[in-house]
Amino acid sequence: MARKPSIPKGTRDFSPSEVSKRNYIFDIVRKHFRTFGFQPIETPAFENSETLLGKYGDEGDRLIFRILNSGDFIDKVDDVTYSSKNSASIAPKISEKALRYDLTVPFARYVVMHQNEIDFPFKRYQIQPVWRADRPQRGRFREFYQCDADVVGSNSLLQEVELVQLYDAVFTSLGLHGITIKLNNRKILAGIAEVIGAGNHLVPFTVALDKLDKIGEGGVKNEMLSKGIPEAAIEKANPLFSLSGSNSEQLEVLRNMLSVTEAGSKGVDELGFILNTLEEIGLQSAQLAIDVTLARGLDYYTGAIFEVAAPEHVQMGSIGGGGRYDDLTGIFGLQNVSGVGISFGLDRIYLVMEELGLFPSGIDRSLELLFLNFGEKEALTAFKMATKLRKSGVLCEVYPEAAKIQKQLKYADKRQVPYVILLGEKEMEEGTFVLKDMRTGQQEIKPQKEVGNLSIKS
Amino acid sequence: MARKPSIPKGTRDFSPSEVSKRNYIFDIVRKHFRTFGFQPIETPAFENSETLLGKYGDEGDRLIFRILNSGDFIDKVDDVTYSSKNSASIAPKISEKALRYDLTVPFARYVVMHQNEIDFPFKRYQIQPVWRADRPQRGRFREFYQCDADVVGSNSLLQEVELVQLYDAVFTSLGLHGITIKLNNRKILAGIAEVIGAGNHLVPFTVALDKLDKIGEGGVKNEMLSKGIPEAAIEKANPLFSLSGSNSEQLEVLRNMLSVTEAGSKGVDELGFILNTLEEIGLQSAQLAIDVTLARGLDYYTGAIFEVAAPEHVQMGSIGGGGRYDDLTGIFGLQNVSGVGISFGLDRIYLVMEELGLFPSGIDRSLELLFLNFGEKEALTAFKMATKLRKSGVLCEVYPEAAKIQKQLKYADKRQVPYVILLGEKEMEEGTFVLKDMRTGQQEIKPQKEVGNLSIKS
Repeated sequence: MARKPSIPKGTRDFSPSEVSKRNYIFDIVRKHFRTFGFQPIETPAFENSETLLGKYGDEGDRLIFRILNSGDFIDKVDDVTYSSKNSASIAPKISEKALRYDLTVPFARYVVMHQNEIDFPFKRYQIQPVWRADRPQRGRFREFYQCDADVVGSNSLLQEVELVQLYDAVFTSLGLHGITIKLNNRKILAGIAEVIGAGNHLVPFTVALDKLDKIGEGGVKNEMLSKGIPEAAIEKANPLFSLSGSNSEQLEVLRNMLSVTEAGSKGVDELGFILNTLEEIGLQSAQLAIDVTLARGLDYYTGAIFEVAAPEHVQMGSIGGGGRYDDLTGIFGLQNVSGVGISFGLDRIYLVMEELGLFPSGIDRSLELLFLNFGEKEALTAFKMATKLRKSGVLCEVYPEAAKIQKQLKYADKRQVPYVILLGEKEMEEGTFVLKDMRTGQQEIKPQKEVGNLSIKS
Repeated sequence: MARKPSIPKGTRDFSPSEVSKRNYIFDIVRKHFRTFGFQPIETPAFENSETLLGKYGDEGDRLIFRILNSGDFIDKVDDVTYSSKNSASIAPKISEKALRYDLTVPFARYVVMHQNEIDFPFKRYQIQPVWRADRPQRGRFREFYQCDADVVGSNSLLQEVELVQLYDAVFTSLGLHGITIKLNNRKILAGIAEVIGAGNHLVPFTVALDKLDKIGEGGVKNEMLSKGIPEAAIEKANPLFSLSGSNSEQLEVLRNMLSVTEAGSKGVDELGFILNTLEEIGLQSAQLAIDVTLARGLDYYTGAIFEVAAPEHVQMGSIGGGGRYDDLTGIFGLQNVSGVGISFGLDRIYLVMEELGLFPSGIDRSLELLFLNFGEKEALTAFKMATKLRKSGVLCEVYPEAAKIQKQLKYADKRQVPYVILLGEKEMEEGTFVLKDMRTGQQEIKPQKEVGNLSIKS
């Protein structure tokens, strides 16, 4: 009974200050989602297992948390399966539901189920936790929030343009300047593979290329070789390793290199349109950079690929990403619905903002004013005053007991209250109160009837 | 693959309009929690099973969703247990985690784990979903939100007073006037049982009394008889069935009836203090009513008991409840921490507000302005204008394709957009745009450079 309690590995409690800071980020993200016309939906924490399983590859399936059936669950396992003692065979017999692994598959399921109520193009946002049985490590949790904005039912590249603007608007509002939004296109990757003669090796080619940051040009080339990509092909890919100059210069190199492939040219056109339009409109604080090594979720994306890098001086992986997928809802039987979306990496954004000191001071303030308690009669008057102040939005409370004043002031200190009100016998007689600024120590005497006009500068 | 997808029984998708209305309620609840000095915490969706099991009685244990261990979970079941084929014995071997069943037990666990960081009295609020494998029915779901505010570490009855004020403030802000906050005290129930000579039958006595609303005086008396409560005792309880008059009159009857029992007198004193203090401070729109039949969570509460009834003309069970529990954290080894708290029944409040039409019109508006799309060049100008408007908080978007205007206007209608902007070749030449009020059909021509000053009255 009295064993010291703990929480499951990879999960977290959030203290008041952390909740406030996280909500600060959520509120800004949500505000911009809304101004861009995105609408909120929410889906259940668990889905039928068949909705989730098989959608994230074998590794994904292993990381999905399954929910045990209620009641006499063993009863539904046939004897042959039971005697196999094989977890993989038994699991589907004793578990019919599973926790949400991401927001994209539930969204696809939502679109298919609600297709008759939805007005397409449908711009939805969703901010909810997801769960993965991953090995926990720094910045990787078994429960974490995803913040996604997706548009389905429009092939227009203006959606891609708008999603980049949305990243820019959010990160600018958060004060997180100097981020880089990296852009690529799945069709460019396909075009490159084709041009260099590695069309049959598209996946190992892009997986290797994706590691350029980490293992360098030599490492990438070795990996390609080891995956059976011919040396001649790798040589032809050389221009990619030395792409430099402005975005339009790089685009020109790619255009020349890929002119002979249909997919590649299409990819270059799309990327060019997005870049040119954004240049025309202008961004507030984000940088744009072509990155042909960007491959994220290759099996999944079919057009634009986005990834957001934290400002250069911060050590942190990507803090956002997304792209265009041409067949989101096909897995649930609704064909030809193109989607494009982006995601914000809340936990990493939080860490970056902490590191750079970007949370405004006072956003985690939970109390602006404390009435010290000098006894029952005084407390009653204090309560009446607190009731008035709360109506005008002041965060305040009356200390619940007539404890020693030192104890009450210590509590005020710990809660970092900027103001306390003292209301003792003398003030009761005079119909006044003493307002003390806890930061300066300054005290002022004021009439009780003016408490409603008190302006609290916290 | 293409089977029509569904969601698990008892769970819900929330559409944009529903999310907006639910957030409207959450925002108001949260605002008042904050002005009363409550601080937010969040706990993980799943806890170690041992944290939850055994805390809600046998029925509760059955309703807890367990999470299947990852990997080769069968491997950890010993042969004897496995060959028993007994679900109850096997469950703990293949499942170590379980979904949150309420917010109170995780809160108690939080307080114990974080006791050294917490400044007591600790006023926390928590708004998160919980999961129960209950049989779904109207208004009862397997996934639903709880909104709780609790104070731990203070025995002061001023906390009870403040929690009643908090109910009053929230329901007044929601426009839900005419609610009744019913008050009782566990000690009064104990006192009554003692006085009538049914002290050994406290639980069946109060369980029966709790049904007065549903089965009437005769039904209650029959149930008491059938549970072995002597007829003489039941006769002595007669005054309870005919309690009437003002709260202070009822209090007087109880005071006389219970004067010989220590617990009973204490209960009457506490209830009296709460009622008198609230009468002194005044409430905005809620009614207070003594209800000695109120027993909620008898095993749990030790002092005040609250329950909120919807306005009389609405058919709905309680929309909130709470009380004082003297030993919240004892189950986790931290003794003598008294707590008192209340809960808001979000789903029922939502239903009542829908029924009474209390949601302000337009709170679920997701778009205030739509730019019709007349082609690539026009769209680019529209995009620039939208970028400006979004900076001043206008919810707007550019229709993504230069589709037929009828189709675009149909979309505008469905999204219930109050304004559209038309920006065709002619307007491009003139540097103007046409602002159309979709409700009146009225159109105005304005210069493009003044778009930033547009005031959108939606």
